[in-house]
Amino acid sequence: MSRTDETAGRGRRPGGPDTRGEILRAARESFAGNGFAGTSLRGVARAAGVDAALVHHYFGGKDELFVEAMALPIDPRQVAATIVGGPRDELGRRIVTVFLGVWESADGQQRMKALLRSMVSSDQVAQLMRDGMTRMIIGPVSETLGVPDARLRVGLVASQLVGIALVRYLLELDPVATTPTAELIDRIAPALQQYLTG
Amino acid sequence: MSRTDETAGRGRRPGGPDTRGEILRAARESFAGNGFAGTSLRGVARAAGVDAALVHHYFGGKDELFVEAMALPIDPRQVAATIVGGPRDELGRRIVTVFLGVWESADGQQRMKALLRSMVSSDQVAQLMRDGMTRMIIGPVSETLGVPDARLRVGLVASQLVGIALVRYLLELDPVATTPTAELIDRIAPALQQYLTG
Repeated sequence: MSRTDETAGRGRRPGGPDTRGEILRAARESFAGNGFAGTSLRGVARAAGVDAALVHHYFGGKDELFVEAMALPIDPRQVAATIVGGPRDELGRRIVTVFLGVWESADGQQRMKALLRSMVSSDQVAQLMRDGMTRMIIGPVSETLGVPDARLRVGLVASQLVGIALVRYLLELDPVATTPTAELIDRIAPALQQYLTG
Repeated sequence: MSRTDETAGRGRRPGGPDTRGEILRAARESFAGNGFAGTSLRGVARAAGVDAALVHHYFGGKDELFVEAMALPIDPRQVAATIVGGPRDELGRRIVTVFLGVWESADGQQRMKALLRSMVSSDQVAQLMRDGMTRMIIGPVSETLGVPDARLRVGLVASQLVGIALVRYLLELDPVATTPTAELIDRIAPALQQYLTG
């Protein structure tokens, strides 16, 4: 039972010491129960028993709230910016470099593992991550490509990334698990580039 | 509690109507508890309370027992034979065609989904599948390649296959989820071929 339920119906309260945490709990519940599109800052504020302005104050917007609520190790919009801001013929390399960079950090790996596990075991989390990633990464990268089949191309890239994460960090299949990151990047980048612009 | 425990210590019995099922239950327990290498036909027979000759009679060998116990939708050795038996420059295409063929059949998809989910949620199943697949598919295909880094190349192929299965069938990310199989094969085959012989 979360704090959300205890405070529901008691009217709006000003920001207290754990107001931020209560908003996050309410956000997680709403994202899980209503999905990305079905979650609003106003609704989260109401569930947390605070004013909507306070949610804006702490998190800015729904994207930021999503990133914090899902405990993502890196802001997907920052990922998207890194990817699209550079030469087109090195898109594949930038993508796999950023992605493996997150997984190679101890904290990032732990969070990404947890996320991957919940995506696979829960249809709700799968849908949520699919919607959030589509909106914050796949969409912007597809627009950069600017071709009619861009979303399929970027989707194939996503499949290779999810696959390498699973085989390297979860299944720990050798020698994929023990190959230095730089060599992995050298091998995977051309395949991604082929998907994107081949 | 399985039948194994009930019958343990009562000595060997001749084959009864569900002897095959009892051997399979004992095999599943042994594979899960002791891994692939730690499982022997003799040990499984003992746990099932039957003679080792009976296990041979029903299943032939440990590989066959593994395939049946894990409810694999297709025999990995048959997969390996299909892959290695053909032109080298079409290896990538044969691999993705066989793989998606299994996933596109209703029964195959159900079993593969269950398997993928348990691999991700259980380290035991992950290790077991890793060992079994290495022995029955990755090993033979790597030998066919006959280059020093063959296992890494085949591992990268495995990562793309696991990834496309996850994104297409579990996450159902559009348009990867809705693209006709033939088009997916056309797009993925060159990437796999690049991993293998590029």
